[in-house]
Amino acid sequence: MSDPFAELLGSSGWKSSSNETRPYARDWLDRFGEPPLGVALPATTEEVAATLRLCATLGISVTPQGGNTGLNGGSVISAGQRGIILSLARMNRIHEIAPVAMTATVDAGVILQALNEAVASHDLMFPLHLGAEGSAQIGGLIATNAGGSLAMRYGMMEAQVLGLEVVLPDGSIWDGMRALIKDNTGLQLRKLFCGAEGRLGVITRAILKLQPAPAAQATALLVLSDVESMLRLGARLRHEAGDMLTAAEFFCETGLAMLLHHLPDLRRPVETPGPFYLLVELATSRKSADPKVLLAEILEQAFESGNVVDGVVASSAAQRAALWQLREEMPEGQRREGPQIKHDVAVPVARLADFVALTEPMLSKILPGVRVNPFGHLGDGNVHLNLSPPPDADFAGTEAMLSQAIYDLVVSVGGSFSAEHGLGQAKVGLADHLRSPIERHLMTALIAAVDPDARMNPGKIV
Amino acid sequence: MSDPFAELLGSSGWKSSSNETRPYARDWLDRFGEPPLGVALPATTEEVAATLRLCATLGISVTPQGGNTGLNGGSVISAGQRGIILSLARMNRIHEIAPVAMTATVDAGVILQALNEAVASHDLMFPLHLGAEGSAQIGGLIATNAGGSLAMRYGMMEAQVLGLEVVLPDGSIWDGMRALIKDNTGLQLRKLFCGAEGRLGVITRAILKLQPAPAAQATALLVLSDVESMLRLGARLRHEAGDMLTAAEFFCETGLAMLLHHLPDLRRPVETPGPFYLLVELATSRKSADPKVLLAEILEQAFESGNVVDGVVASSAAQRAALWQLREEMPEGQRREGPQIKHDVAVPVARLADFVALTEPMLSKILPGVRVNPFGHLGDGNVHLNLSPPPDADFAGTEAMLSQAIYDLVVSVGGSFSAEHGLGQAKVGLADHLRSPIERHLMTALIAAVDPDARMNPGKIV
Repeated sequence: MSDPFAELLGSSGWKSSSNETRPYARDWLDRFGEPPLGVALPATTEEVAATLRLCATLGISVTPQGGNTGLNGGSVISAGQRGIILSLARMNRIHEIAPVAMTATVDAGVILQALNEAVASHDLMFPLHLGAEGSAQIGGLIATNAGGSLAMRYGMMEAQVLGLEVVLPDGSIWDGMRALIKDNTGLQLRKLFCGAEGRLGVITRAILKLQPAPAAQATALLVLSDVESMLRLGARLRHEAGDMLTAAEFFCETGLAMLLHHLPDLRRPVETPGPFYLLVELATSRKSADPKVLLAEILEQAFESGNVVDGVVASSAAQRAALWQLREEMPEGQRREGPQIKHDVAVPVARLADFVALTEPMLSKILPGVRVNPFGHLGDGNVHLNLSPPPDADFAGTEAMLSQAIYDLVVSVGGSFSAEHGLGQAKVGLADHLRSPIERHLMTALIAAVDPDARMNPGKIV
Repeated sequence: MSDPFAELLGSSGWKSSSNETRPYARDWLDRFGEPPLGVALPATTEEVAATLRLCATLGISVTPQGGNTGLNGGSVISAGQRGIILSLARMNRIHEIAPVAMTATVDAGVILQALNEAVASHDLMFPLHLGAEGSAQIGGLIATNAGGSLAMRYGMMEAQVLGLEVVLPDGSIWDGMRALIKDNTGLQLRKLFCGAEGRLGVITRAILKLQPAPAAQATALLVLSDVESMLRLGARLRHEAGDMLTAAEFFCETGLAMLLHHLPDLRRPVETPGPFYLLVELATSRKSADPKVLLAEILEQAFESGNVVDGVVASSAAQRAALWQLREEMPEGQRREGPQIKHDVAVPVARLADFVALTEPMLSKILPGVRVNPFGHLGDGNVHLNLSPPPDADFAGTEAMLSQAIYDLVVSVGGSFSAEHGLGQAKVGLADHLRSPIERHLMTALIAAVDPDARMNPGKIV
């Protein structure tokens, strides 16, 4: 019998040998992914719809896959499940960039970096900045509601989505491609599909909001004596710099020391050691404005008020890049230190100081000498709270206890145990443990309403 | 038999005589509203939950009501339905304003103006500006996903909502009170409740995002020869003014002439008559910035490029108020002209010029001499497209044909037939006619998943 998927999609649209499917089967940290029955690579929305109809007829599950850059295994097949992977990689056309309306109409498989390059020639930008931009696809970024360092200023991925086209589990096509900020014509479906991790259908196209490209930037790295001072400075920056404030990223001496030890090419940026460092960036699309002057004004006040202990303002593009490198290589420094445990949490900004102050004493009771390395995004309370064991030791089996203590504390201060990375396979069990039965029931019922046969990316979300 | 609602809620929490329920029964335009079985006025979330449990036991429907300022009858009982009204008016406490985190925690019944006043003392603002702010309640603004003139800069109501508490149809309480921008722990439930018009439950509390209060403003009224020039100027303003651009409201000579005729105290702001006028406002929280200088720079370029024909910059608070009055009294001028038909639509900004150019010839074929008065929000394509009949005539029975032609045109350019006012009772039939069967089925299934007995605000959304 000939393969009905091959018949439907042709040889370039259907991969079924294990050699061909291997590049799609595992997540990029190689932690998750059952072998798929095959990989569908449809070229059009109609082919996606026909594939889902065929899957419905055959009772086969479907895991949509974008750039497969997620950290939690959301775009590969869950343990114990069988099904096909549906890759959007061939649907990579940028249909329109509307410079006056500042919108872009794109296929789900468009790679973030390709979009960035296409809009740059119109003096525009797409305001999402994250490490995987060379591989991450728009559809996957929507399905996981991606965050990043610009989320403080522009919001998460859902805030960038005006219109969507989604193929539903039964193969019908929902046309929500309306380039509208204001559209109160019923339930906000376009918002519901953002972050649904493929459980409600396959995102095939989107209309995205664009922003004016920055014409000038000013960057500084500041030393602060405590988290409270950092928060006060953050609030002052929001008041005084308004939307010019595009980044406020923090890290601590524990992380910086590890980084400088393992990457000797990097240099300590200021003489005074922190406990805390804040990387601040102001940017503006106004050609006549100078964010450097404004940043200097604000910092002068901050020094006078004692909020800032020391600091350096980048005087060249090279110096700016060197400051950003410290923040961006933070995970690499810790990785080279040896075993580690990573956590992507968010706490209400008002509780951030308490949270950081409480973690080290709490975790030291479980593992004396544990090294706590919080870094992340000040503006939205998103902390990558990573742990290393005491020098020349290991975690000695305390990993689960340490993580559990962190997640319990996060939940007790009204925080989130999964801030910007989503749940995928890695955190779905944790989610079912930590969320209330009412929330779990709501999500289960909503998913069942759209996908009664539970064939869309089973094992994710709940 | 004693009334179980009175027993549950006491005499201040339950109104059942027609005298007592009359103030709640009808919408404020007095167009909609069946008499309720009674009006519940719970004082706490627990009382809301107990009321919904009682309704579930008795099989009674519930229509949640905020300030009852909606234009489409969403907060009163639909034709042919029976049930109670649940007013949030007694739940009006502002629990917390966190100045550093810039968040407010409020009960659903807090009135918008009360919130504005409370946050002003912290040098903050809540970025929602609309006419009904003295009566509109936060819960209702969330349930209808309210818009207004600041939506271009800050987004709709859903963009201001961080956390929510919702009592579900069965009386269980969903606690989504997390003050987090980043919270990817499953479906984005907090977004789904925004704009659901009470069909998924009763919103009882919210955590809202605040913004720095403006320290300085600059306002101008400009005359433009066509919509294209207006759009080009809008894009230039977004590039050059960034987030300082807080309003870009347009109206036309048809509307201005009516207004000046009926409200003789108002004065023509510039000598040159439009066809189009654009009210532009820049504002900033930066105490050291002067938006007037920036506005003057941008306008100088706009005059040179020929985009702007004439204009006036407000030189005092009184002059600023006079300019805003022209925009805000636009509906009143048309009301005094006699019979009218109102439409609240949105079209993609890229299609706005086509749309405005097409309406008059199209509608003149149906009713020669019909006066078309488009005004609204340039930044988000939201047009209040209101019609008056030819002078000294009436619509002669063409009302339905005129509206239908407008809605069909809106849908054909990818627009929305209900931009910021929601559906309520007035537009639910229109929605069921215009939306695709797939979209209708999706909304029906999602509502049934949360409210299987269809007891929450029946007759709304679908």
